[in-house]
Amino acid sequence: MSGTRFVHLVDTTLRDGSHAISHQYTAEQIAAIAAGLDEAGVEYIEVSHGDGLAGSSINYGWSAISEEEMLTAAAGAIKNGILTVLLLPGIGTQEDLEMAIHCGARAVRVATHVTEADIAEQHIGMARKMGLQAFGFLMMSHMAPPEKVVEQAKLFESYGADVVYVADSAGAMLPEEVKARVGAVVDAVRVPVGFHAHNNLTLATANSLAALEAGASYLDGTCRGLGAGAGNCQIEALVGVLEKTGFQTGVDFYKIMDVAEDLVEPVMHRPQVVRNAPFMLGYAGVYGSFLLHAYRAAEKFSLDPRDILVELGKRGMVGGQEDMIIDVAYQLAQKRGGA
Amino acid sequence: MSGTRFVHLVDTTLRDGSHAISHQYTAEQIAAIAAGLDEAGVEYIEVSHGDGLAGSSINYGWSAISEEEMLTAAAGAIKNGILTVLLLPGIGTQEDLEMAIHCGARAVRVATHVTEADIAEQHIGMARKMGLQAFGFLMMSHMAPPEKVVEQAKLFESYGADVVYVADSAGAMLPEEVKARVGAVVDAVRVPVGFHAHNNLTLATANSLAALEAGASYLDGTCRGLGAGAGNCQIEALVGVLEKTGFQTGVDFYKIMDVAEDLVEPVMHRPQVVRNAPFMLGYAGVYGSFLLHAYRAAEKFSLDPRDILVELGKRGMVGGQEDMIIDVAYQLAQKRGGA
Repeated sequence: MSGTRFVHLVDTTLRDGSHAISHQYTAEQIAAIAAGLDEAGVEYIEVSHGDGLAGSSINYGWSAISEEEMLTAAAGAIKNGILTVLLLPGIGTQEDLEMAIHCGARAVRVATHVTEADIAEQHIGMARKMGLQAFGFLMMSHMAPPEKVVEQAKLFESYGADVVYVADSAGAMLPEEVKARVGAVVDAVRVPVGFHAHNNLTLATANSLAALEAGASYLDGTCRGLGAGAGNCQIEALVGVLEKTGFQTGVDFYKIMDVAEDLVEPVMHRPQVVRNAPFMLGYAGVYGSFLLHAYRAAEKFSLDPRDILVELGKRGMVGGQEDMIIDVAYQLAQKRGGA
Repeated sequence: MSGTRFVHLVDTTLRDGSHAISHQYTAEQIAAIAAGLDEAGVEYIEVSHGDGLAGSSINYGWSAISEEEMLTAAAGAIKNGILTVLLLPGIGTQEDLEMAIHCGARAVRVATHVTEADIAEQHIGMARKMGLQAFGFLMMSHMAPPEKVVEQAKLFESYGADVVYVADSAGAMLPEEVKARVGAVVDAVRVPVGFHAHNNLTLATANSLAALEAGASYLDGTCRGLGAGAGNCQIEALVGVLEKTGFQTGVDFYKIMDVAEDLVEPVMHRPQVVRNAPFMLGYAGVYGSFLLHAYRAAEKFSLDPRDILVELGKRGMVGGQEDMIIDVAYQLAQKRGGA
């Protein structure tokens, strides 16, 4: 690993972190945290509903305030950083993006499932036309082999993405798996490559280092690791580790530690620890939305919910297939009965 | 990394974990947790005061019950595992070890500062004579270069140690630093080598994997990572990650997860998260006992306590030198004033 390479950091405390507080950030909290991150020198400050622009809904959970109020609060607090938004095609629209630009957003991360980059072509094009930096963001990347991730990353690049991200949305990857995917993408595209870690397997920081080793130059994190389940990569710790390793981030390590402890920690609903349920999501490599269904099905068929999650992971089931979980449990119970 | 190698696990929830609950385990808690770990298939179950046999004192904190009661409770609950104790020469004595054997201990880890293995010769010899498995345990290994760690590990081997441990007591090492030290020791001794991680830099699991990659075959952990400051390597997560990586541990992954959540979590006084103070101890590579002194000295001289900790780390100060912290702070303040 090079000792003087620069690593671009994206703080997503005010986007992915919002899952952990049921999207209840107030404008005051957003302004204070965004100002702190900006003052600490964070380059990209992502602010949106946890599921991206227009995520606030009965489906994904209502935000405490409108996206416009969130972005306005952040934009007013940021002097040097780049206000960034997340957009999932199918949830966010062109109008949402226009609103975000109007509020001061200067970069957008367009996120799709790892096999569905093609649904993002228009959104990347639109973002570029509107003068935004556009990131292509491949979610649940552990579900596709490196060659598939490469194919999809190249699609993003062909649409004009400025940066392509490999996202370990389920926190399911081991360092070697991160290296395989990130390394393959780095070799295949000309644009910079990023990596987004989750901590389900207690490997978020290590996986971020593995991504750098494989050639990535953008990393994500949240203060205190704030995020759904096991949470994200703890950004203030990442900054310290990168500094100890010899990388440059432009972030003041003490200042971002203080943002985490003085501003973010008081907002948290619960400590960000790795309990059994989120660990199992990472171990099985499945969606968080599967959890409750698996527990219900386990009760119905007297199974261990962990066996159901592992089976769902083996079958590569994706979000939207929750209704099939009961069938999988039934089959597992039949198999158990016959054994 | 080999996919079928066996990794010996030492659970130290009931020894190193006791720091985090001020050594207040009851006999009932010890019996329940030891029984759970044993039932899960853990090979070594370490039970002692956090600072080893006879640690219970005004200096190191009183245990809730006597060491004899602790060990008797554990021994009565363990059917297959090896009841293990920690002994720090200077704190624990031959008499304490005799008491532990009488209670059912079958292995002892004799721990010294990384440069002081020579004070353990008698204790290792005594343990061997008494029929115990004897581990040599080099604490604060980040403070010595690989060649020094090798020299000290060879001393332990020459005294008859069955296993030699590299311990990252301050949680200060990066994976490459772990590999350098563990790899060098593996190359130099004929006995198996172990690694003991702390999570100050959020790298405990990753560092444990790095140790295996360098040839270690013994690893330590505690349920939920229970331990002083940032805590230890979270053993149930480690078991899951090792299983996912393809290593064998003999431990039932679901059962140890349940011990962590059902038996250990309810005993904890606070969640095991990486806050700023323990992170800084790892970042600076200094003793936990320096923390309070550094904060006091910082206040006196209007310094950031973090700068004092980093300076103490640079100077390689060791436990017992706490009274020099005020001098270091004074010098830093002078330098600052003159700059």
